[in-house]
Amino acid sequence: MSSPSMYSSRVAQFWWQSLLLFETGKGYTEKEVSKLSDRSDPIVGAANPLTPQTPDFRERVQESYGKQTALALLGAHLAKVEPGEVEIHLPFRADLTQQHGFLHAGIVTTVVDSACGYAAFSLMPADASVLSVEFKMNLLAPAKGEWFLARGKVVKPGRTITVCAGEVFAMGDHEPKLVATMSATMITLQDRPGISPG
Amino acid sequence: MSSPSMYSSRVAQFWWQSLLLFETGKGYTEKEVSKLSDRSDPIVGAANPLTPQTPDFRERVQESYGKQTALALLGAHLAKVEPGEVEIHLPFRADLTQQHGFLHAGIVTTVVDSACGYAAFSLMPADASVLSVEFKMNLLAPAKGEWFLARGKVVKPGRTITVCAGEVFAMGDHEPKLVATMSATMITLQDRPGISPG
Amino acid sequence: MSSPSMYSSRVAQFWWQSLLLFETGKGYTEKEVSKLSDRSDPIVGAANPLTPQTPDFRERVQESYGKQTALALLGAHLAKVEPGEVEIHLPFRADLTQQHGFLHAGIVTTVVDSACGYAAFSLMPADASVLSVEFKMNLLAPAKGEWFLARGKVVKPGRTITVCAGEVFAMGDHEPKLVATMSATMITLQDRPGISPG
Amino acid sequence: MSSPSMYSSRVAQFWWQSLLLFETGKGYTEKEVSKLSDRSDPIVGAANPLTPQTPDFRERVQESYGKQTALALLGAHLAKVEPGEVEIHLPFRADLTQQHGFLHAGIVTTVVDSACGYAAFSLMPADASVLSVEFKMNLLAPAKGEWFLARGKVVKPGRTITVCAGEVFAMGDHEPKLVATMSATMITLQDRPGISPG
Repeated sequence: MSSPSMYSSRVAQFWWQSLLLFETGKGYTEKEVSKLSDRSDPIVGAANPLTPQTPDFRERVQESYGKQTALALLGAHLAKVEPGEVEIHLPFRADLTQQHGFLHAGIVTTVVDSACGYAAFSLMPADASVLSVEFKMNLLAPAKGEWFLARGKVVKPGRTITVCAGEVFAMGDHEPKLVATMSATMITLQDRPGISPG
Repeated sequence: MSSPSMYSSRVAQFWWQSLLLFETGKGYTEKEVSKLSDRSDPIVGAANPLTPQTPDFRERVQESYGKQTALALLGAHLAKVEPGEVEIHLPFRADLTQQHGFLHAGIVTTVVDSACGYAAFSLMPADASVLSVEFKMNLLAPAKGEWFLARGKVVKPGRTITVCAGEVFAMGDHEPKLVATMSATMITLQDRPGISPG
Repeated sequence: MSSPSMYSSRVAQFWWQSLLLFETGKGYTEKEVSKLSDRSDPIVGAANPLTPQTPDFRERVQESYGKQTALALLGAHLAKVEPGEVEIHLPFRADLTQQHGFLHAGIVTTVVDSACGYAAFSLMPADASVLSVEFKMNLLAPAKGEWFLARGKVVKPGRTITVCAGEVFAMGDHEPKLVATMSATMITLQDRPGISPG
Repeated sequence: MSSPSMYSSRVAQFWWQSLLLFETGKGYTEKEVSKLSDRSDPIVGAANPLTPQTPDFRERVQESYGKQTALALLGAHLAKVEPGEVEIHLPFRADLTQQHGFLHAGIVTTVVDSACGYAAFSLMPADASVLSVEFKMNLLAPAKGEWFLARGKVVKPGRTITVCAGEVFAMGDHEPKLVATMSATMITLQDRPGISPG
């Protein structure tokens, strides 16, 4: 595989990009600005300390993912695990569709729910389990493609509650197309009878 | 099958029941009350005219459902079609789970999304297609059971937008247990290239 | 005030009513039915033990509500507190609208979020605080009315997480009209620095 | 006001930043990559043609915003209007709080719902009206601050349905803090009796 970097940065910036273009800063007080301008610590460092609590977070995610029989049934695979970020790929199959031949919205949900759940799990302590509390999907376009890229990222980690954002792209013989977004709340469980770590 | 009525009314009232206990009516003005007390038309009749626009709405739902290959893969079947209400049953299978052996939240979503979508579709005109615009799931309890009952109902029908509520019960060797609720927005599409009615 | 009972039961059943009509029970196995038919304990009792943990739950709700300055600004008042159920009334005012003169969706949200939060809080222990983790609103119809009735109910209580359902009716010189529904996740906080019980 | 650019770019990248760090591109096929690498058109251009349909979109937003009496009551003001992006600022006031003295979640919702609605409206035709179909809020942290910055952006424009993402930051004597995110569905209405354009 040669030079995926251009490709991947394109995908990465695809829909979040508009959210970064912020040029004018109208309406801030001088006081606000001066307060901020003499600091050296990066905001993102303070706000997003997406630091794994275990050195083997990738193995823990991989092991737990291996127990998700539903993902195996669908033919999905775990493609990337970083602290607070997980990617799952799903090839299109004709037996995964709704009535018009598009990937069923529930199947889209299944892969991105797992991506979000493991993004959260990658930051949890060794004895923790992760469960979805709730999620919301916006289906932006029919899920037509050769394969699908589901990405989950932690927006706000927490001891009990972790909030994630997910996105699903249709990939193939066309521009990568954002077909769905998810916002999800995950919970960290510890010492819960009947639920082993994972 | 003998006398399912007691059973079914129990399931029906399971979680909505608390929403019906409303005894006192504190805080209403006398004017409000008198305005209401001399009417003969039932409120629910005015508010919920869940009238199908086609006589063959059951067949249309059944035919479209038959094209949802994803539901066949999961082993689900369409169990009930009434105007604005659809029920899908899904037997538990070990290849539909997340890492703790519970039904995967995305699989739970798949069946109740279809139930809500077809509840909406049952009220649509003959040339219409239905697509999910968005939905939100609350996962109330681990989805453990012998089989699962997903029900979708139309809360507010509309020409373009139909809002539905869904619920999923875990069934089997225990009390029926509400494991998830959905709120969903469905859209009616007509004359859309590449999307045939259904 | 004379005989609000007819009125209130009408409002109570308004939109949940369609969710109760469940007549046939098609598709259940005989085994399932027989398993259920010889039990004496009511399902709803097992599932919905909406039992307050403190005898003074009404006072605790009322006291905390009194600190919600935003609700006072809007002119809302607490109309009903039952275990796991709270109702707030809001008279229409011309300074609470969006651009078409309807009640602003955010104002609708404000009252029903408080109703859901206090429904959850009514079941919490004495030293607990309640915060909203997330909520989702479906806006079903323009919020036009003389006043608005917001009701929150606990769907699933829990030690940490409580899930609620909310609904808002437009009231006045017309049939009560369901204008919005909410699904919400509330969290119980205890011993949290900077957050006093309430 | 001097040089707000450093400040504003910090705010802009605050929480979306983690969503941009995407370095490896593991798992893509060579075919996928080559297909992408010889194109000159930027992906974001194809995907996000956030082009206003009217030259006076700023004036239309401003005029409609001026009719939102609820926003005036709260003391909010419209701070920025770009194609598909709107920002509203809200100074903290003691009469806008919930029981712990934080900004009420419903008030947070009110400002970011308007920001999202007008972000959508900025791209609509001259005779259109905008209404919220649904939105979901995740409350990430207590809304404590001197003032609040609510930003709405269009994620996916459409003829009937526009999907937006919103975020609210607490501002003041501390790092800008992301306190809430919204995902919202807006609808374009035309020729609707009783709803004038806006």
